[in-house]
Amino acid sequence: MISVGIVGGTGYTGVELVRILLRHPNVQIKALTSRTEAGMRVDAMFPSLRGLTDLEFSNVDQDVLNQCDVVFFATPHGVAMKQARDLVDAGVKVIDLAADFRLKNTTEFEKWYGMPHACPDLLEESVYGLPEINREAIKTARIIGNPGCYPTTVQLGLLPLLKAQEQLVQFDTLIVDAKSGVSGAGRKAETSLLFSESSDNFKAYGVKGHRHHPEIVQGLDAISQQKGWFDQMIFVPHLVPMIRGMFTTMYLKLTEQGKQADLQALFESAYATESFVDVMPAGSLPETRSVRGANQLRIALYRPNNGDTLVILVVQDNLVKGASGQAVQNMNLMFGLAETTGLEVVPLLP
Amino acid sequence: MISVGIVGGTGYTGVELVRILLRHPNVQIKALTSRTEAGMRVDAMFPSLRGLTDLEFSNVDQDVLNQCDVVFFATPHGVAMKQARDLVDAGVKVIDLAADFRLKNTTEFEKWYGMPHACPDLLEESVYGLPEINREAIKTARIIGNPGCYPTTVQLGLLPLLKAQEQLVQFDTLIVDAKSGVSGAGRKAETSLLFSESSDNFKAYGVKGHRHHPEIVQGLDAISQQKGWFDQMIFVPHLVPMIRGMFTTMYLKLTEQGKQADLQALFESAYATESFVDVMPAGSLPETRSVRGANQLRIALYRPNNGDTLVILVVQDNLVKGASGQAVQNMNLMFGLAETTGLEVVPLLP
Amino acid sequence: MISVGIVGGTGYTGVELVRILLRHPNVQIKALTSRTEAGMRVDAMFPSLRGLTDLEFSNVDQDVLNQCDVVFFATPHGVAMKQARDLVDAGVKVIDLAADFRLKNTTEFEKWYGMPHACPDLLEESVYGLPEINREAIKTARIIGNPGCYPTTVQLGLLPLLKAQEQLVQFDTLIVDAKSGVSGAGRKAETSLLFSESSDNFKAYGVKGHRHHPEIVQGLDAISQQKGWFDQMIFVPHLVPMIRGMFTTMYLKLTEQGKQADLQALFESAYATESFVDVMPAGSLPETRSVRGANQLRIALYRPNNGDTLVILVVQDNLVKGASGQAVQNMNLMFGLAETTGLEVVPLLP
Amino acid sequence: MISVGIVGGTGYTGVELVRILLRHPNVQIKALTSRTEAGMRVDAMFPSLRGLTDLEFSNVDQDVLNQCDVVFFATPHGVAMKQARDLVDAGVKVIDLAADFRLKNTTEFEKWYGMPHACPDLLEESVYGLPEINREAIKTARIIGNPGCYPTTVQLGLLPLLKAQEQLVQFDTLIVDAKSGVSGAGRKAETSLLFSESSDNFKAYGVKGHRHHPEIVQGLDAISQQKGWFDQMIFVPHLVPMIRGMFTTMYLKLTEQGKQADLQALFESAYATESFVDVMPAGSLPETRSVRGANQLRIALYRPNNGDTLVILVVQDNLVKGASGQAVQNMNLMFGLAETTGLEVVPLLP
Repeated sequence: MISVGIVGGTGYTGVELVRILLRHPNVQIKALTSRTEAGMRVDAMFPSLRGLTDLEFSNVDQDVLNQCDVVFFATPHGVAMKQARDLVDAGVKVIDLAADFRLKNTTEFEKWYGMPHACPDLLEESVYGLPEINREAIKTARIIGNPGCYPTTVQLGLLPLLKAQEQLVQFDTLIVDAKSGVSGAGRKAETSLLFSESSDNFKAYGVKGHRHHPEIVQGLDAISQQKGWFDQMIFVPHLVPMIRGMFTTMYLKLTEQGKQADLQALFESAYATESFVDVMPAGSLPETRSVRGANQLRIALYRPNNGDTLVILVVQDNLVKGASGQAVQNMNLMFGLAETTGLEVVPLLP
Repeated sequence: MISVGIVGGTGYTGVELVRILLRHPNVQIKALTSRTEAGMRVDAMFPSLRGLTDLEFSNVDQDVLNQCDVVFFATPHGVAMKQARDLVDAGVKVIDLAADFRLKNTTEFEKWYGMPHACPDLLEESVYGLPEINREAIKTARIIGNPGCYPTTVQLGLLPLLKAQEQLVQFDTLIVDAKSGVSGAGRKAETSLLFSESSDNFKAYGVKGHRHHPEIVQGLDAISQQKGWFDQMIFVPHLVPMIRGMFTTMYLKLTEQGKQADLQALFESAYATESFVDVMPAGSLPETRSVRGANQLRIALYRPNNGDTLVILVVQDNLVKGASGQAVQNMNLMFGLAETTGLEVVPLLP
Repeated sequence: MISVGIVGGTGYTGVELVRILLRHPNVQIKALTSRTEAGMRVDAMFPSLRGLTDLEFSNVDQDVLNQCDVVFFATPHGVAMKQARDLVDAGVKVIDLAADFRLKNTTEFEKWYGMPHACPDLLEESVYGLPEINREAIKTARIIGNPGCYPTTVQLGLLPLLKAQEQLVQFDTLIVDAKSGVSGAGRKAETSLLFSESSDNFKAYGVKGHRHHPEIVQGLDAISQQKGWFDQMIFVPHLVPMIRGMFTTMYLKLTEQGKQADLQALFESAYATESFVDVMPAGSLPETRSVRGANQLRIALYRPNNGDTLVILVVQDNLVKGASGQAVQNMNLMFGLAETTGLEVVPLLP
Repeated sequence: MISVGIVGGTGYTGVELVRILLRHPNVQIKALTSRTEAGMRVDAMFPSLRGLTDLEFSNVDQDVLNQCDVVFFATPHGVAMKQARDLVDAGVKVIDLAADFRLKNTTEFEKWYGMPHACPDLLEESVYGLPEINREAIKTARIIGNPGCYPTTVQLGLLPLLKAQEQLVQFDTLIVDAKSGVSGAGRKAETSLLFSESSDNFKAYGVKGHRHHPEIVQGLDAISQQKGWFDQMIFVPHLVPMIRGMFTTMYLKLTEQGKQADLQALFESAYATESFVDVMPAGSLPETRSVRGANQLRIALYRPNNGDTLVILVVQDNLVKGASGQAVQNMNLMFGLAETTGLEVVPLLP
């Protein structure tokens, strides 16, 4: 059994980790920490867990965490980078669901997150936890920076094009129009996230700059070997009045080769062996509810009017493939388990 | 492996059965019928199932169904009672999720469902599939009438009182104020169920008479040995703008013995060994989301101002413990499996 | 023109007052105060008001308020009672939308609101602002305690019975099962009110005791001349995943006279001349959306199975007839205007 | 008083017309027709109208309609074009809220709507009812084709650029990523529009081709004097789980002149005298709720990272400025009334 610690268990990625790991056959949750709720039973805060666990939130006890095999950070940014050193030194693997180990460039990190990075050396060592791209590196990593939700959809939506032998699209024309359910903003008591403010409403946000923008560019640059294609990428996120779900619509100009190519076949082939990426049949219209609660991402391709624009539609559950599910997928890789272990939940529809 | 047939797979109880049974370790779905969608892949209608099954909807093929071990009817009322005879004769067990085998009195059935009953003898033989009440009879039954969603909450919410040695409440004062998510009305193209009609809205319905009313009375009468206590029961259902979930608020006058009794302890004791009924601690406020997607029912008790009224709050997911989950629970009993097999899903919160 | 001041303009009852008063032909809003947002344009916080007003939030300026004809308090409780004396002395009428002038008994006030009352003499003088009950007193009042949302539905739902010559129901059997949209909890940054917590969910709350309980009892006692009928009233509020709307379901035992009486006619007659109370035809099922945005309350009556229980269904928009609309109705009365002035908005459906 | 007939009163644009016209000071509704509901009181179907009107749905009576001053068609496409001739001959003005008088090219009409056009001559005469573009022609029109909801947002979002003296953007790069509330699909009993299907879900639709696509292109072509810029326009509509509201995100490449220009000032100037188009301050994030129930459209402009892409955000209420409100705006123009008459409703927030 893998001993697991979860730091920051009161947010949505934390309780989602608990939901998944309670049914993971190879895991035992040893500790679930919360600065504010120490001593409270987990199922008193999250009644969905009644009958399933006797865990209590605890203060961070370094000794306990050091005895874990892996520690997940489901905290705001800035926490994991301060605690990672001790854990790594104690031989504990670290998976950070926040942003501390996503941006490799510490200047960029400081610019977007407003604080200097606390452990640049570990940052350099850490692996970006997108299994479909970095599977081998993840297997041996000591520290994982678990990807952001938007970046997961964009990178997996473009990966087959980036890896294609020919240049099928003009990558510098990329426009990302993304839509997220409200849980993506976390379990924070903010007025704008109130039911009475965000229900029956639709809005854009972060148009002037969103923290996932540099992460997306870094990821795409890495895959494309730093060609600078994405320096002018447009990224406009929107807020949807639903709890879970992320829908990303991408627009790219096709090259002449791209117009000749069978992109549907390219994508199907690229993901043929992936358990958690589904290339839908031509003509499909993905819906966020088709992945509710499941570690699944679905992609559909369109070329409207047979013209020169490619439209890529991607859906995922922002809390699963976009966060906690992907974190468990990473853990499975790190511990030599089948990648799907504990992640076979069927989406909840309706 | 248990060979399963599902008749009527395009409704919500049908797709919910598929969701559960695809992860049931002892089950193989052999057939999923639909008059209207025969030949269509199931995952084309329900994209949540993509990658999980190759099943297609098929026309009803009696030979195929006859070779199943059990057939679920997830159809409108009036279907199961016409097909049950052939199946039973072929040795196939039948679990009807509609109303054909709920009301024992054929006159009542005809009054509420507008058609004569097609097989009164099988009706008489059939067992009302509420495991917490009829567990032993279910184990050997050939035909199960799976309970309605409202009746499940009312009967399980009152069972410990009905089975108590003393009379703790005046049962003839029972008022049931019940609230259901919209999926309880089924996957029917009706104007009143449109998003634009039922979102951001709350209403009562069926105040003049609801088909679950006689089922509730029959069930309570059976437990209480036909004392006629519930002839004047008040039952007012309401429609909540949420997909899944049922919340039942019940009001009863306490007797003098009831005022002296420790009702919390009574309920906890009554359900101590039940896997799917959770008596919440005193002071708890159940929420429907705490059971979303799970075969779980939760109960909380209140005695406001220490007065003479008992308030019983019950929540369940109408599609799981209120329908398809309970049907699988019955199947487990009928085939000698552990009652919880395939039903260990953790509720989806948020 | 009536000069209006609004203290506490950043909450839902505040912005709702602005919405109504901007279209009131006899009103000019002179000041809109906010401790936290002074200097901010009102339409920067509430973009729905862009193009309709140049108002800015201001600090409380007693001189400005003293020059108003009427000041509305759309604040949390505890504010109006501290500022009312100065205003009344300056000849300004006061309408408090919070609870400071609702409970006449200062001991009760302190018990439920956790602070001593700051001006018991003004409390005694103040009038409970339910026009359908206290119209004449309101006309000449200097201070109005605007009713709570739940109390409005209960009192208006029972008024014809309380005023009937015969005793038609056993008032001491009253059970109130009430349901409110989330905006009733105000514009407060609390976790439980987040979209991700309260959407797709239904729950009870305040079962152990809700502040509107004593207000309801006080109101009903007043109408019934202090017979103590409501000492054991049961009141269970629930939270509905919708922004606006309140639905109150009430249960009462009929007396023998009540069973003989034509209650539908009684209610229709009682409210024949009221503009804002609609007694729906027998058999109607009220919906909260039928009053969305309008100062309207609708009532429907049922006697299930012709039995001995009366069911009364009441709907209103909690922010309009349950708060700000009723406050304007009171203002109209106080200033000799037609009661409907500025309140003729048609409900928004769908 | 203007005598008004409404053909097809049971859909959302029909009831929305009634909502608006009941408060229009210069209008009297003479007839409201419905093939299916003739004889039913309007307020029995739409309880929001109780107390406001005694109207009944009636069969189409040509004599009655011929005596109206104006007839609105709130019907599916294909109805208005068959009845328009008689009305026009009788001197009655016609405003069609469906598509019969939108596409000027009858071949296009037949291609997209699957039927030949019934009155090509009237089609040629008819005026496209977008007041901010065609105000003068509308004033004297006999037949108005009221614009579709998406086309309204796109055309008004681009108008200042199209009318600018310099070419500020490369119009042939236009991408329209649009999002609509569910009421945009009408009051049709279709499974995909059920609450349980479309709540808590987000999806694209019509990616292969949407009927508003040719209408948008026609409109933009007309303003730009048929330069063919929009032949390759990309238009991807999405469905948002909210009742009302439309949010359109547009992307365009800037020209060198465009990068130099003060586009914010251009837009503000272009719409300075328009009552129903609001150019929000730089940096604003429009929300659909800011126009709920009101005949208002709001625009915000962004140039991310000061790069070469212009992002235009547009919101409206699809049933008001996107349909019935705009129709009344047209009527006001046709009858010489102030354009805002009857359209001063304040948006409903929250």
